[in-house]
This record gives sequence, C-alpha cells and structure tokens, in this order.
Amino acid sequence: MSGCAPKGACARALVLSQIGRVILKFFLLVVVVVFMESGYSVTPWEARGKIDYDKLIEEFGVEKLGPELVERIGRLAGGLHWLLRRGFFFAHRDLGLVLDDYEAGRGFFLYTGRAPSNSPMHIAHIVPFVATRWLQEKFNVNVYIEIPDEEKFLAKKVESLDEVEPYVRQDILNIAALGFDPDRTFIFRDTEYISRMYRAAVRVARLINFSTAKAVFGFDGETSIGLIFYPALQIVPTLFENKRPLIPCGIDQDPYFRLQRDIAPRLGRYKTAEILSKLVWGLTGPETKMSASQPETAILLNDPPDVVKKKIMNAYTGGRATIEEQRKLGGVPEVCTVFHWYSVLFEEDDKKLEERYWACKTGKLMCGECKLELVQRINRFLEQHRANVKRAEEKLHLYMYDGKLAQEMWNWEFR
Amino acid sequence: MSGCAPKGACARALVLSQIGRVILKFFLLVVVVVFMESGYSVTPWEARGKIDYDKLIEEFGVEKLGPELVERIGRLAGGLHWLLRRGFFFAHRDLGLVLDDYEAGRGFFLYTGRAPSNSPMHIAHIVPFVATRWLQEKFNVNVYIEIPDEEKFLAKKVESLDEVEPYVRQDILNIAALGFDPDRTFIFRDTEYISRMYRAAVRVARLINFSTAKAVFGFDGETSIGLIFYPALQIVPTLFENKRPLIPCGIDQDPYFRLQRDIAPRLGRYKTAEILSKLVWGLTGPETKMSASQPETAILLNDPPDVVKKKIMNAYTGGRATIEEQRKLGGVPEVCTVFHWYSVLFEEDDKKLEERYWACKTGKLMCGECKLELVQRINRFLEQHRANVKRAEEKLHLYMYDGKLAQEMWNWEFR
Repeated sequence: MSGCAPKGACARALVLSQIGRVILKFFLLVVVVVFMESGYSVTPWEARGKIDYDKLIEEFGVEKLGPELVERIGRLAGGLHWLLRRGFFFAHRDLGLVLDDYEAGRGFFLYTGRAPSNSPMHIAHIVPFVATRWLQEKFNVNVYIEIPDEEKFLAKKVESLDEVEPYVRQDILNIAALGFDPDRTFIFRDTEYISRMYRAAVRVARLINFSTAKAVFGFDGETSIGLIFYPALQIVPTLFENKRPLIPCGIDQDPYFRLQRDIAPRLGRYKTAEILSKLVWGLTGPETKMSASQPETAILLNDPPDVVKKKIMNAYTGGRATIEEQRKLGGVPEVCTVFHWYSVLFEEDDKKLEERYWACKTGKLMCGECKLELVQRINRFLEQHRANVKRAEEKLHLYMYDGKLAQEMWNWEFR
Repeated sequence: MSGCAPKGACARALVLSQIGRVILKFFLLVVVVVFMESGYSVTPWEARGKIDYDKLIEEFGVEKLGPELVERIGRLAGGLHWLLRRGFFFAHRDLGLVLDDYEAGRGFFLYTGRAPSNSPMHIAHIVPFVATRWLQEKFNVNVYIEIPDEEKFLAKKVESLDEVEPYVRQDILNIAALGFDPDRTFIFRDTEYISRMYRAAVRVARLINFSTAKAVFGFDGETSIGLIFYPALQIVPTLFENKRPLIPCGIDQDPYFRLQRDIAPRLGRYKTAEILSKLVWGLTGPETKMSASQPETAILLNDPPDVVKKKIMNAYTGGRATIEEQRKLGGVPEVCTVFHWYSVLFEEDDKKLEERYWACKTGKLMCGECKLELVQRINRFLEQHRANVKRAEEKLHLYMYDGKLAQEMWNWEFR
C-alpha cells in the first residue's frame, strides 16, 4: 500500500526526509525558543487552517494581539493562561487601555455571555469562559454573564421560547461550574433581568437608527422588529459599571461592540475593550465549526464516555493512510483536530504539548494512541465538570440573586 | 358696523331671517325627535368641523358606529353614556362581536392607555377614560391601562426618561381618580411591568417584520431601533386575557391594533375590537388640537380657577362680532369650542344641552354668560377631580400592585 515503487528510491527518500525532518525540527525549535524566551508562544505548531486571521483583523479593524501585550498581561497577572500563551486570543480592541486602567487603579470589568439554544453546550462553548474565569481570578474583577434566552428565538434558530427553556438552567450551571467567584459574578437571563435592563436598553436603542443597525448586522425588510431591537440588550451590560468593560468573545460578536463604541461616549460610559478568540475546531477537520446540531463535530458536555470515545476515534486527524506511512513520514499535527483539542483545552503543559507535537511529527506517536489518551482526558474532564455542576447547583442562587454582586445588580439603575 | 345699508331692506331681511329661523328650528326639532325616538342622538347640533370622519372611516377601513349598534349597547347597559348618545364615538371594529361575546357569556375586556410626556394631562386626555370607566361599570369587565413611559422618549418628543418621570405618577392618579374599580383595573407602566411583558413582546415582535412596521407606521432609516420595537409593547396587553379586547381610543392608535389583528390568530388570541373617538377640540377653534405645550388651547387638570377663567374667556366661539348682532342673528354653536366642551364633558343632560343650543342659536344666550357658566362647571369639575386624585392616592397600590386584578397580573404569563 506504500506509495514508493523502486526500493532504492524509497530508502533515499526516507533518508532525505529524515535529514529534512531534523533540519525542520531545529528550525522550529529556534522559533519556539525565541518565542518562549519572550514568554509568549504563538507556537511553531500553530494551526494551519482556512481562516486567515490577519485578514479578519484587517476586515474588522481590530488590533493584532501580539507578544508585547500578552507579556504585559503575564507580568500583571503573574503568569499566563495557555490560551493566551498559545495565541488562541489573536486580536483585541483597547486591551492596552484596560491594562492602563488596571495599573492606575481605575480597574475594569469583564462581560461575556451565552445564548441558549435547543441543544446542550459543547466543549468549544466553554473555552471563552475558561479564559474569562482566569482573568477574573488574576485581576480580581467583576464578571457579568448575559444569558440572552430570547436571541435564538428572535433569530429564528428555534421555533419557540419554550424550546430553549430546558437549556437555560443547564447552560448557566455549565458556566457557573467553571469556578467563577460567586460574590463577583452576576449571571442573568434577559427575559428575567429585563426588569432592570429595559430603561437602559431604551436609552441605548434611541441612539441607534435602523440604517446603522442594517449596515452593522445586515438587517433587511424581513428582519423582525424583535431582532432589530435585540442589539440594545447586548449592549446594556457594557454600561453596568463606570469602568472599561473587557469582553472576551469570538470575532462574530464584534459588531455589537463596535456599535457600543460609537454610542458609549454619548451615554457617558467607556467604549468596550475586546479580546477576541479564534475558532475551536470541530472534530471533522481544521476550522470546521463545532455544532451541537451535528453531533459528530462536537463533544457535548453531557456526552457519556462511550459516545466521547466513538466521536474522538472518528475525528479527523493529520495522520497518514497507514501506520507504516505514519511511522515513515510522521503525522501532520498542524491540521489535526485531535492535536488542536490538546492545545486548546486538554494539555496545559507547553513542554508536554511540544513533546506530543514532535512525537507525532516524527512518526513515533500513532493516531490511535493519541486519540485514546484524548478520550481519557476528555472523560476525566467531563466527570470532574459534572461534579462541579452539582456543586454549582447549590451556588446558583449566589450567581443569579444572592451573591454580593448579584444583590447589587438587582438594584442597579443606569444613571 | 352692521352690513345692512338701506333701513327697509334691513328690516325685511330681519323678518325673513326670523321666519327662516322658525322654519329651521322646526325642521331641526323633527330631526332631533326622530333621532331621540331611536335612543340615539347624533344631534342636529353636530359639530361642523374640518375633519371628514366619513373619509377617515373609509381610509382606515373601520366601520361607522351607527344608531343600531349604539342602541344595542344601550339595551345591554341599561342606558347610554352621553359620549355614545352624541356620536362622540364615531367608528369601531368588531364592536358587534364584542356584544355577541358579552351576550353569550364569553365576556370581553377593556384596554386603553396614556403615554406620559413632559406636561400635565389636559381635559381632552380624560375623555376616553371617562367612556372606558362607564363601559367597565355597565359591563362589569376588567380594564387594563398601559402607561408607556418610554414612548415619548423613543419618539423623540422628550429628551430624557427623567423628563417624563414627574408626570408618570400624576397621570396614573388622574386616571385612577375617574373611579375605576380597583379590583378589576390594572394600571401598569412599561418600564416596570416589562418584567412580565417581555416574553410576550418577544413573541409578538418575531411576527412583525420591518417592512410591515415601515408600511404601518412610516418608519424609515432614521427611526431608532427602540421605536421600531415599541409596537410590540403596545400590542402585548391585547393578549392579557383569552377574550376579545375592546379598545376605546382615537383613530391615530388604530395602526397598532390593525397590526395586532394581523398577528392575533397566530398567537391563538382574539383580534382587537375598537371603539374610536373623535377629536376633542382645543379652545382655539373647531377641530384644533388640544395641546399641553400650547396652554391657550387646553385646560390642564392642574390649572387654577383664574387660569381656567382666562383661558375660557379667550376661547374661540361661534359668537357674532357684537352683542347686537348676536341678539339679531344668534350664535353658531356648531363651530363654537365652548358649546363643544359642554357637549363633550360639561353637560350630561341632553335636554339642557339642546336648550343651550337654541338659546345661542336664537340670540338669547350671549357668549360671556355661556363662557362664565362653563368656567364654573370646569372649576367645579377640577375641584372634585382633585379631591378624587387625593382619594386615588390611597388606592394607587390597588390599581398597580395589590388589587385583585393587579395581583393576578403580576403573576401573568402569556401561555
């Protein structure tokens, strides 16, 4: 089944490829060392995907998140989360100003969210929350988590509000389970907290005309008047404090906050800062989207161990057609969803991740083994997560109603 | 100053005009009797104004409110309010079906409202509430009164929500003071009751796209996304009960309810019925608008007696240039704002109103006397009204929170 026909050619090719690999390895190591030296490691094993993030940066008019700023976070935080070290957050707006505010004692606050749908959360959904929680811990700031339980209904992704209802509590628990500080975190659902948000939303909405909303979100005549109003509700939490809001999110959410940045000065508030994450790949290939409605692409947070195993064993890898080839040529971790998942969530240790990279690259690590280990890690993670969800159930009232911040927020008024 | 030159001609003209007047009076009386006979009295002294109500009926596609239907109300209610007797309500939608529902025991409910602005309510504002209260009493039904305290702000009639704030409570008290049943009436302000309305508003809003809203309300690119959403909030109260809603209002509010009639079936609810009132004239002329921002046009509910007197004494009448002419030719009550106000609010007795009409028409009643009497009646009314407001203050919690209906509504969910 091997592709090499004449034996000699094959041997020569092998030797050359081995020499090439050594040279490549040396070169990459230099890159790694150079980056590591700076504490920042947008790694040599950076993913090779279809998305041109530099182009996105240009299109959206955001700033590239480079080593300097990441290192500054590291200095202030006394360390760096691997998602930051590994360049998973690739762009930002005003992050420098956030750090200025922090250093000057003015502080800042974090705001993010999750729109419940008609299916459970999957692994990719928790990634920005993992980063948010880390930022809360390191900078000791308030976190606001919006649960816009009407959004998917207004966007016509589901047919009724009731369809979403069973997932609202489940999503909140999955988020709370990540360990946010119950006295500095407020989790609120729109249809409930609207009582305190509506007056502010009205003030926001009055400053946004249809032409602008149309240009920013692509609304047209078919768009419902509910969806047209919705941006106001996503903007309101940026007004919760008279400090700079920092929003860890995907770049698809940037339009809301670009709009916020236009109107914030007229409301006497700070423009939002953003820290923008890349896409977590689905299991079907590099930069495919994880989607709960296509179960083969994602691990759901409630997947049982055997389902996890089946999905991961079927995942798209950078492996070769045969074990022999893999041994000869090595794998291609740069396009491997399994390696990607290690790097995003399941290998905290840069050194071990690097070892895994080279083991794959040099044909020492076979896909089956690598996948089985990921299965174990995911199942261990999910088991622990479920235990955390159980504990979060008891604390839910703190995040939503009774914690220090939640109590304050149930009396909040935008002044 | 008289326009008659040769004395003889003048005398002849006078005799002819007196004969003419007698003939006219006889003719009109016949009309009155014929109408009165039927219990319905769109009177011979019907206002002569610029507004062509028949044309409005055609334009808006509503039904004319004729004697048959009014009499049917009278039969079921055991009497007729003068506003109905005198044709002040001139058009309707589905009023017959409302009465069918009532007779069949299915019942109906009343819904109306008042958008607070940055000035106090005036006399014209309370007219639809007077009719609504009467309907509640006679048919023993629930009344819902929406106070959309965000509407004027979204419509850019005021510059801040705070500008409206002092008038919200005052408006609610002015309405409550008219004597609504505290256990069958729920008065709610949008920015507060939004907590229970929002889920329903989202369901309503999803059914209305921008093209439709644009066609119905004339929205354009400049319209704020807040105003675009607002119609959903005016429609929600039509869903409060699974009965037919009857809305006493001006025809300018019809577009909201026409929209409601389009979507109600998809929400499993009744299409709204309407009973539409004419314009109460401002003091500056027939069918001018009363406006709190032009004090000379209106009596505000908080005008002191001397201001009332000054405004009424300056009001536009159907009087002649001189007392002599008035004695000779009689007044023109059909275009007189003072007579209009008697007919709309300050003379309940048809017979006495008719006497006043003829006293004016035949030159027996001078404008000064007629106005002074109106001043007295208005000041008596306002004094009583203020006493009622004082009493309403003690009952306010019943209308808004603690009355039987209010309590139910604070647990309302649209199912």
